Amino acid sequence: MELLKERIRKDGIIIEDRILKVDNFLNHQLDVELFSEMGKEWKRRFKGKNINKIVTVESSGIAIACITAQHFGNIPVVFAKKQKPNSMDGELFEARVYSFTKEQECYIKISKNYLNEDDCVLIIDDFLASGSAVAGMIDICKQANCTIAGVGIVIEKKFQGGRELVLSQGIQLESLAILEGLKNGEVIFSK
Amino acid sequence: MELLKERIRKDGIIIEDRILKVDNFLNHQLDVELFSEMGKEWKRRFKGKNINKIVTVESSGIAIACITAQHFGNIPVVFAKKQKPNSMDGELFEARVYSFTKEQECYIKISKNYLNEDDCVLIIDDFLASGSAVAGMIDICKQANCTIAGVGIVIEKKFQGGRELVLSQGIQLESLAILEGLKNGEVIFSK
Repeated sequence: MELLKERIRKDGIIIEDRILKVDNFLNHQLDVELFSEMGKEWKRRFKGKNINKIVTVESSGIAIACITAQHFGNIPVVFAKKQKPNSMDGELFEARVYSFTKEQECYIKISKNYLNEDDCVLIIDDFLASGSAVAGMIDICKQANCTIAGVGIVIEKKFQGGRELVLSQGIQLESLAILEGLKNGEVIFSK
Repeated sequence: MELLKERIRKDGIIIEDRILKVDNFLNHQLDVELFSEMGKEWKRRFKGKNINKIVTVESSGIAIACITAQHFGNIPVVFAKKQKPNSMDGELFEARVYSFTKEQECYIKISKNYLNEDDCVLIIDDFLASGSAVAGMIDICKQANCTIAGVGIVIEKKFQGGRELVLSQGIQLESLAILEGLKNGEVIFSK
């Protein structure tokens, strides 16, 4: 998606050719107009699939998922929680996730009330790197016997293994910007 | 806001006349169409104020803030973070917040890059009870010398002190549903 790539080139900050920081528009300050364009693009790429629910994980996925839901006819969004608040009782689907950015492991949780076998789910997240968060969401969708229509990612780091993890399960993956690497302070996009 | 009150009556679950659980549409599964109506309502209530940024706190505020931003001309949303990821460097505004629901204290943080004296901010959150989270966001906005246009809350528990905390600072408070209390498994709304 050209608009997104331009934005990454313009506002992305590269740290030590290792980290791409996009908190100017994607995960701290949020550009909702850009998110709407992304939602429109996923709607085009997942055309013909009867998606009736979006699943994401807190926190960075929530905004993108909600604005994307508007392009799929205001379908519900369910976000997996990392902590269990006191008010979250009842039965839960759970999956283990390891965050390389935060260097910690956690269990993500979705209430059994909000996912079931009638759901055809689009999984949305901001980044795909090793794929641990996405694998956790796929795991939860499988526990719920959902149909998984696909995975929509904003920025994929192609060199970290997440792509294979999704495709090997026969799931459609649509990343809006695919990074081959970071080199000399510049982003190298995949063709 | 009548539509919201109806939804709370229909889908809210009251636990021991103490906790109102709304994770069916507000903070686990998300109804983006309802959020859009809420955004429209805040736009009406804060009419004439030159709001150019929305501030909220992760996680439950993010979705509401983003869809509300669409009604204010797609202005940027900045959400305060509870944890500091490795990629969040630079200087931060910080404020201490105590969550009664999670029974823990934390520091919420916003990068100094995303708030400054030119900003006229609308603070958005899902709940107002004791007001600790909102007080933290007000504190951060004051550190940044922002103008605070007001505070928009989805559900206010009037009996827990947050209202006085906001109004005593001369800040406009617009809660879309105000609870007087929970009694015999029913929600008592303020007139």
